[in-house]
Amino acid sequence: MDFEAFFEQQLDGVREEGRYRVFTDIKRHRGSFPQATRFVGEDTQAVTVWCSNDYLGMGQHPDVIDAMHAALDECGAGAGGTRNISGTNHHHVLLEQELADLHGKESALLFTSGYVSNWAGLGTLASKIPGCVVFSDALNHASMIEGIRHSRAPYKIWQHNDPEDLNRKLSNFGPEVPKLVAFESVYSMDGDIAPIAEILDVCEKHGAMSYIDEVHAVGLYGPRGGGIAEREGLMGRITVIEGTLGKAFGVVGGYIAASADLVDFVRTFASGFIFSTALPPAVAAGACASIKHLKTSNAERERQKERVAQVRARLDAMGIPHLPNPSHIIPVMVGDAHKCKRISDWLMDNHGIYVQPINYPTVPVGTERLRLTPSPVHDDGDIDRLITALSEIWSQCELARMATAA
Amino acid sequence: MDFEAFFEQQLDGVREEGRYRVFTDIKRHRGSFPQATRFVGEDTQAVTVWCSNDYLGMGQHPDVIDAMHAALDECGAGAGGTRNISGTNHHHVLLEQELADLHGKESALLFTSGYVSNWAGLGTLASKIPGCVVFSDALNHASMIEGIRHSRAPYKIWQHNDPEDLNRKLSNFGPEVPKLVAFESVYSMDGDIAPIAEILDVCEKHGAMSYIDEVHAVGLYGPRGGGIAEREGLMGRITVIEGTLGKAFGVVGGYIAASADLVDFVRTFASGFIFSTALPPAVAAGACASIKHLKTSNAERERQKERVAQVRARLDAMGIPHLPNPSHIIPVMVGDAHKCKRISDWLMDNHGIYVQPINYPTVPVGTERLRLTPSPVHDDGDIDRLITALSEIWSQCELARMATAA
Repeated sequence: MDFEAFFEQQLDGVREEGRYRVFTDIKRHRGSFPQATRFVGEDTQAVTVWCSNDYLGMGQHPDVIDAMHAALDECGAGAGGTRNISGTNHHHVLLEQELADLHGKESALLFTSGYVSNWAGLGTLASKIPGCVVFSDALNHASMIEGIRHSRAPYKIWQHNDPEDLNRKLSNFGPEVPKLVAFESVYSMDGDIAPIAEILDVCEKHGAMSYIDEVHAVGLYGPRGGGIAEREGLMGRITVIEGTLGKAFGVVGGYIAASADLVDFVRTFASGFIFSTALPPAVAAGACASIKHLKTSNAERERQKERVAQVRARLDAMGIPHLPNPSHIIPVMVGDAHKCKRISDWLMDNHGIYVQPINYPTVPVGTERLRLTPSPVHDDGDIDRLITALSEIWSQCELARMATAA
Repeated sequence: MDFEAFFEQQLDGVREEGRYRVFTDIKRHRGSFPQATRFVGEDTQAVTVWCSNDYLGMGQHPDVIDAMHAALDECGAGAGGTRNISGTNHHHVLLEQELADLHGKESALLFTSGYVSNWAGLGTLASKIPGCVVFSDALNHASMIEGIRHSRAPYKIWQHNDPEDLNRKLSNFGPEVPKLVAFESVYSMDGDIAPIAEILDVCEKHGAMSYIDEVHAVGLYGPRGGGIAEREGLMGRITVIEGTLGKAFGVVGGYIAASADLVDFVRTFASGFIFSTALPPAVAAGACASIKHLKTSNAERERQKERVAQVRARLDAMGIPHLPNPSHIIPVMVGDAHKCKRISDWLMDNHGIYVQPINYPTVPVGTERLRLTPSPVHDDGDIDRLITALSEIWSQCELARMATAA
């Protein structure tokens, strides 16, 4: 087989479908993010980032930066091994305690990424509990789907955010069948939020374990940043809370929080945990500082809410269509892959505004969008420039507008 | 089902088999590694680490630490997104260029860990090439095995380091079947090295792609630290070279290096790459500095070779049995799980010497061992203390000695 020809042909196919990805090469500016420098060949361009998952700008918070510098000087660059073979650093231990406390759980376990925490967490539970059946929300993230697939456990997909459908699916299995229900709190692309209490009612009725992915919520919701489940007083009813250190907490890594025995079980049997070099001590120290700060400070969350509300109001005033949802994610709907890409390119080239186009397969065809994530570090000028530019391109492309409030 | 009771019962089983893992909680001392502080409850203990995969001490090299501090101040803590959605930092781009150059390949791709690079790299190639059959060395690492399993592609296991057996296995499939041969260069637990040239002869004869894991070799072997394949002038004949930034390079992360189209193919289709937050810019900058340093400096490699030879000679003089191999890994053979754990505990408690016991399932029952990794940063005093302590416990436990050279 001519492998090279095969790769080339597959890539040509992706290009023809308009979904070939060219990564935008930037340097975020610590201290003045969302400002960044974009690299294009030999040239550079000043840009404002409007699509980051560093939702609160904690990636440049002095507490986080200082903690990382200190740990780097104290412990060096890497951890030097897997958690079992010389790679457990005291900063990992402290971070896991901080995470358990954040979610009111007995224990927590760190992974190298949120992807790995879902893949290894769900994969281990589903494969190692004999006869386990998994019930997965239809819009669950790729990392959860791959973890479930990897487990080889039978699974049923229930309609997105629909506790009644979950109830129907669970009812097909007797009480003797071990059940694991997997869902998210805030869904990344639509920004909608799961009816967690109703889902937990159904789980409890059927004796099912509940596994919630709160990666787009931790740090952002709840009085201490514990996520939607904390805000709604539901953490104690959830079996496993999974989260990330790479979005609102501004660093990198993933985790699960649960009972001591469940966490110890995953720690003992998860290949993706056991055989990976541990995260650098400085990463753990930075994440720990970020969590500690957001446990007591509401300033970033309040300011983010205000920024999100302002961007929504300004979009409404201009009649620029965006998906209504109760979260901090603003999907500006375009509905066409090529137009979406063209608008994104135009915003970058003409206004230095960086919003990545979100096309199929990340979202269904016909729902292509620009996903805006206003943060506490976007100032009034940033918002003015964004709205003005969007309005200009909306006219140029003759895109549909909604009736304005006025 | 009573999930908690199930977890507890499973963990009890692991405890009874003597393979329950208690992580050793340490802080490595930047600037004086292999010295570290161990945390035990409220107490601390000064220890010397003898089982780290920071093989050359690059985790504390000034170039690496300085590059990380600088990138942290320049770009902040995290990358802020996946590679496609605002997470590509210029430091990632530079690091990928550095890696491609290191291996003489057109292109390279970063992953969050070596585990993920194997899992996603092999998983993507094996699942997306129609009809692909994988040929996996019997002792391949868990990350490779899980990647192959995840792909659902049919696979054949060939006898460890046996090109003739590989040839027989490949011969059962016609030239029209796409074939992928996966193996390692240095095997972690025995420290033996694959006959790469012979394996490549067989691959080429059958038109198979070759995929080599060089995680225990990059930085350590070859005139520029490109690994065993570089040392033997074979990089150009290998389809995919996989490596890590978390061992000899001293930081964290994994990668593949290959042709531009192959790398672009994996970049485009690997779920574990696409949907993960990118590594922090400071991690990329630190790894880049480490690679650059080891491309031109042989001092660390020379000193490590001398240290390894000295430890081996001293073990021989004392008749302490260790597995002969041509690499930097010294497996001191104990052959009993409980004794292995007891020796490790005794070394720690009485001499502050930290060597993790390696038991089943990491190695076969009856081959339990202490895996020593001498590095350029272990001084003569460290070696004296290690040998004296080992000799003492060998007598105490009445363990078998080999005939000494004397």
